[in-house]
Amino acid sequence: MPGEYENTLMQKGLLPSDVEHLKSMLGDTQVSAGSSVRELHSHDESFHAHVLPDVVVLPRSTEEVSKVVAWAYERDIPITPWGVGTSLEGNPIPVHRGIVIDFQEMNRVLDVRPPDFQVDVEAGVVYKDLNKAISNHGLFFPPDPGAAATIGGMIGNNASGIRTVKYGSTKDYVMRVVVVLPGGRIIKTGTRARKSSSGYHLCSLFVGSEGTLGIVTEATLRLVGLPVNFMAVRAVFPTIFDATNTVFQVMNSGLSPAAMEFLDEEVVKILNRDQGLSLNEQPTLLMEFHGFSENGLKEEMAYVEEICRDNKALFLDKGIGQTERARLWEIRHLAHESIRRNHPSLLSLSMDVAVPLSRYSDMVGFAKEQVKDLAAYVFGHAGDGNVHVVVMDDPANRDRWSRVEEANRHIVLKALEFEGTCTGEHGVGIGKRTFLLQEHGESLALMWDIKHLLDPKGLMNPGKFFFMDEEVR
Amino acid sequence: MPGEYENTLMQKGLLPSDVEHLKSMLGDTQVSAGSSVRELHSHDESFHAHVLPDVVVLPRSTEEVSKVVAWAYERDIPITPWGVGTSLEGNPIPVHRGIVIDFQEMNRVLDVRPPDFQVDVEAGVVYKDLNKAISNHGLFFPPDPGAAATIGGMIGNNASGIRTVKYGSTKDYVMRVVVVLPGGRIIKTGTRARKSSSGYHLCSLFVGSEGTLGIVTEATLRLVGLPVNFMAVRAVFPTIFDATNTVFQVMNSGLSPAAMEFLDEEVVKILNRDQGLSLNEQPTLLMEFHGFSENGLKEEMAYVEEICRDNKALFLDKGIGQTERARLWEIRHLAHESIRRNHPSLLSLSMDVAVPLSRYSDMVGFAKEQVKDLAAYVFGHAGDGNVHVVVMDDPANRDRWSRVEEANRHIVLKALEFEGTCTGEHGVGIGKRTFLLQEHGESLALMWDIKHLLDPKGLMNPGKFFFMDEEVR
Repeated sequence: MPGEYENTLMQKGLLPSDVEHLKSMLGDTQVSAGSSVRELHSHDESFHAHVLPDVVVLPRSTEEVSKVVAWAYERDIPITPWGVGTSLEGNPIPVHRGIVIDFQEMNRVLDVRPPDFQVDVEAGVVYKDLNKAISNHGLFFPPDPGAAATIGGMIGNNASGIRTVKYGSTKDYVMRVVVVLPGGRIIKTGTRARKSSSGYHLCSLFVGSEGTLGIVTEATLRLVGLPVNFMAVRAVFPTIFDATNTVFQVMNSGLSPAAMEFLDEEVVKILNRDQGLSLNEQPTLLMEFHGFSENGLKEEMAYVEEICRDNKALFLDKGIGQTERARLWEIRHLAHESIRRNHPSLLSLSMDVAVPLSRYSDMVGFAKEQVKDLAAYVFGHAGDGNVHVVVMDDPANRDRWSRVEEANRHIVLKALEFEGTCTGEHGVGIGKRTFLLQEHGESLALMWDIKHLLDPKGLMNPGKFFFMDEEVR
Repeated sequence: MPGEYENTLMQKGLLPSDVEHLKSMLGDTQVSAGSSVRELHSHDESFHAHVLPDVVVLPRSTEEVSKVVAWAYERDIPITPWGVGTSLEGNPIPVHRGIVIDFQEMNRVLDVRPPDFQVDVEAGVVYKDLNKAISNHGLFFPPDPGAAATIGGMIGNNASGIRTVKYGSTKDYVMRVVVVLPGGRIIKTGTRARKSSSGYHLCSLFVGSEGTLGIVTEATLRLVGLPVNFMAVRAVFPTIFDATNTVFQVMNSGLSPAAMEFLDEEVVKILNRDQGLSLNEQPTLLMEFHGFSENGLKEEMAYVEEICRDNKALFLDKGIGQTERARLWEIRHLAHESIRRNHPSLLSLSMDVAVPLSRYSDMVGFAKEQVKDLAAYVFGHAGDGNVHVVVMDDPANRDRWSRVEEANRHIVLKALEFEGTCTGEHGVGIGKRTFLLQEHGESLALMWDIKHLLDPKGLMNPGKFFFMDEEVR
């Protein structure tokens, strides 16, 4: 499908002399126009069409990023930042070619400050590596998107995951960022204080902007003390309604779940088949609780059990402590991988709506109905009202794929009707642009004005977030 | 001191015919140019100079706000939003006169949605009234600035308070806002979903912008379930260092305090004198913990006690349950009132720096030294690194007052040296403008560009946040 974007932004393509210039700027090994490197940077984990950049650069410092951006911006060359390509909406695909800035060489944990509960990192640090590096200080960085994402990618997308229900998403943890603005100017914004009412909160503008306003090269992240104790529950229900109603009641109980995940029966079936398990093939909830005292957690467990039984739970598995938690949660981490492995020739469209909690049952029911004739798996971060529908199919089969896209469209429009959002955590990228006007109405024009203020040439991760046809004006 | 702002923004003043026009727009009783109403809207609770607006309007809907703003903007008339005037940095003082928009008639709780943990309110709702209205649903809105602020004022200032250490500040609770932009255009931005990665996070741009980018007229707020159980501790220490070191160790212990307040010996002394108490007149910490299980809280209490004793605590008072919590915390709520009542002829300058936790001891020590010859009281939200120094003095005595301002300046500059912020929660208003360039560096220019994009005429709460002399360009 490359060529799909032909008739949008025009650009001249880089000349060999441009590549040489970049090499003279950064060093030979930091610049690659070889086809295998370009191919690696042409796609993420989604079905979106591959587009090869003209060149991939690997800067080693904010100053080098600034130099590249300044040079490219003056020459009207598109610039797309790159973490590790684990995104699911085509967010880092260089649809207008140009330069991809890969952050793999900027992967240093710059400064761990345990007494301040904060850490300074470069954008290329993988969050799992970060959590390893800080765990011996008794600290962790809670947003957990599952994939091996970089901090820069997580900031770009405002990533979140299973622990967000208690701890929040990436935006809640970004205290300070260093940003290279479109012309190459470097700014630092935010504070090391835990709170501030000084100035506009620019950090929140850059978090979730997918590199369309500038490129975050370094960040100061807030950290949290590792939980002292864990409690986990896996509960199986006769119907989806019983499961989602349990979500609702647990959230309303005065308990504070640290995770609250829903898996439909199709997900459990494929886990059984792929992993050789024998779990009940029915709607399932996985819950996790963090606390200080083991006795306190036991009381919470008893209450959770009572709510599950009130909602006709057929089976309960539960445990206290980190080992038990790991045992009960293993299946959740295997889900996405098992789904993909069982459809080796197909690609996935991963839907990602989020709705107010009172609408979660209706949303899951509606989504199931829309995808009932497709190879579809429904799960999600139920405590946040986030529903994922992963459909496996073949984008080259236009008839079938248009049915997948149609289901996606109906599910997103229903989520918006429920006053929810087209994307809970995957970002806008390429696939969600078409829904932004409906979701944001008049405020999309203000987003566009801000984009235009910062990036008047439209060169920063072009082809994402906005359509260029000015529908928003 | 009116006249202090004479030589900045010029404006013509409203004519009687303008007032008549506003009356024809909103109704006679919704517009007042009487001197007592104007005097009421000429000052907040700070020492900043009184400035009377030309007219005060009391719209009853977003549409009425929009009409007033559109009309005024076209005529170059300054517009300043007004909650109840409890701010401490002159934030709502109409320093360039013009129109004050008072939200007292927009004080409806529009829609409580318990299953979604959210509420829709008009900007004029007082947060204490909101918490009363939702408590029977088992819910509360955690940010607690102490004063009887409106939600609109809290949003303008990104207000926070004693519970922020666990629950966050106002920005963490604003899901959606309705904003009247400078030309009168109405936008709604945000979502009812608990999380989203769709579009730029404009909510966070308006929260904390003090009405300088537009006027928030309605908001959807996230709510939290009321704590099931409470535990509280009051601990008295021989030195400030022992107290602040305890803060640090409790924050690092794996416990999650819901409040963590510091009071210096001067605050305790004035409480004893004013309230007829007999508390130990030494550095004091007030701590609060929320939990599900009473047994769990008892274990936490034992651990807190151990940390306090390790830090030479001289005295401990403690309790479990809501009544005990109220008893132990009463003194904190009385502090500000007792200080003011004991200096009836003086005004207060209320300093508000926040620093990283590791600097809290140094910051408090430095602040005490700076104000040692003044009538000064040091306290603050220690768990957030927020230090308040309230100095009582007479602004009309230029010699004395310049010493107060000098102490403020030194304390702010030290906080910035510690990579903290000039204002943890009171906002920039008039008093903190002078520190923004130092705190934000290059990013202040971007803030200014955004201000200029939204409010090209500079009419929205003018004289706040920025100086007009272009120092930031």
